[in-house]
Amino acid sequence: MIETVKVIGAGRVGSAVTARLAERGIEPSDPADVILLSVPDAAIRDVSGGLTPGHGSWVAHTSGATPLSALDPHERRFGLHPLHSFTRARGPEQLDGAYAAVTAETDEAREVGFELARLLGLRPFALAEADRALYHAGASFASNYLVTLYRTAGEIFEAVGAPAEGLRPLIQGVIDNGFELTGPISRGDWTTVDRHLEAIRTRKPTLEPLYRVLAEATAR
Amino acid sequence: MIETVKVIGAGRVGSAVTARLAERGIEPSDPADVILLSVPDAAIRDVSGGLTPGHGSWVAHTSGATPLSALDPHERRFGLHPLHSFTRARGPEQLDGAYAAVTAETDEAREVGFELARLLGLRPFALAEADRALYHAGASFASNYLVTLYRTAGEIFEAVGAPAEGLRPLIQGVIDNGFELTGPISRGDWTTVDRHLEAIRTRKPTLEPLYRVLAEATAR
Repeated sequence: MIETVKVIGAGRVGSAVTARLAERGIEPSDPADVILLSVPDAAIRDVSGGLTPGHGSWVAHTSGATPLSALDPHERRFGLHPLHSFTRARGPEQLDGAYAAVTAETDEAREVGFELARLLGLRPFALAEADRALYHAGASFASNYLVTLYRTAGEIFEAVGAPAEGLRPLIQGVIDNGFELTGPISRGDWTTVDRHLEAIRTRKPTLEPLYRVLAEATAR
Repeated sequence: MIETVKVIGAGRVGSAVTARLAERGIEPSDPADVILLSVPDAAIRDVSGGLTPGHGSWVAHTSGATPLSALDPHERRFGLHPLHSFTRARGPEQLDGAYAAVTAETDEAREVGFELARLLGLRPFALAEADRALYHAGASFASNYLVTLYRTAGEIFEAVGAPAEGLRPLIQGVIDNGFELTGPISRGDWTTVDRHLEAIRTRKPTLEPLYRVLAEATAR
């Protein structure tokens, strides 16, 4: 059972995790049952190399795409990636209901990873080491690139004088409707798609490749 | 003041609008103060041409990208496009809080369009005829193409055995965080982007152009 956790890093993820552990009465201590690295991906290897975990301690990181080997030379290790987009503007409640990918090399490591995830309010699932980069790319499509769509739509709305505030209920509606596809492509209405393309080509030409690739992916 | 509305069409939009008007006590009648065409874009011109509106009646359509001239020969006309993604699985509550683009050629037409939008529970804004195609393309980025991102992420999650249910809280988190950009590109972490690309190229090569274009747009 996890009784002590030392979180290294106070970025978006580390701050939310530290606040949640405090809520749960899990004390930071040194040595700790788990040392959780929530540092930039490029720093994981260096920070890990400098650690001297206590006897029986686990070392873990919260990175989505970084291999477990970045935690060398420690062998009692796992990865715990919260599948969420964190902001500093909010606290530990951001963790509630989110999923978490746990990557482990032994059953024991997976059990500890699952326990820590649940302690944080996350819903753990096992993810193979070999699948992590692809998994993380998938997560980027749904989170980072959603921001890109929102910004792109906002840029267009600004150009036509439409209120950007209207995008939020639109996007929320797509979620509430279970991501049902509507709009011209769902109806096979290529006349409207051509109207869009003509308008984009004339007034926002830098967006044409993005529109085209998304239209093609939508039609597949 | 609008007292009677005749809705033509019972698709996703028409059904929600008809149900909302019934809730508001607005009776369908013939002739009506407003005849609202909620039919496929390609059918608007034909249906409009066959109408005989009463004296003083208005004719309108709910299409996003179709020009007002599709309502010829009627001159008392406007466009009212609800900025929302509708499903048949839900009712008039879908309209609540959504915005609506009203396109009109006279002040009087705009006033009637705004009144109808508010009657439906929508928040109207004025949109110029010349801007409609670009506006509608913007709306497609935020709605239809969000569905495409969700499906793409789901396809990847299936390939790695990750739960697709995890995507919903992830996406909801992006909205709740005010569309703040997180992830590798926000950190300038091109090593992770390269890991994503390598994994996609190896295991989901058809997604490579989509990933690349989105990464480029995100970096801008």
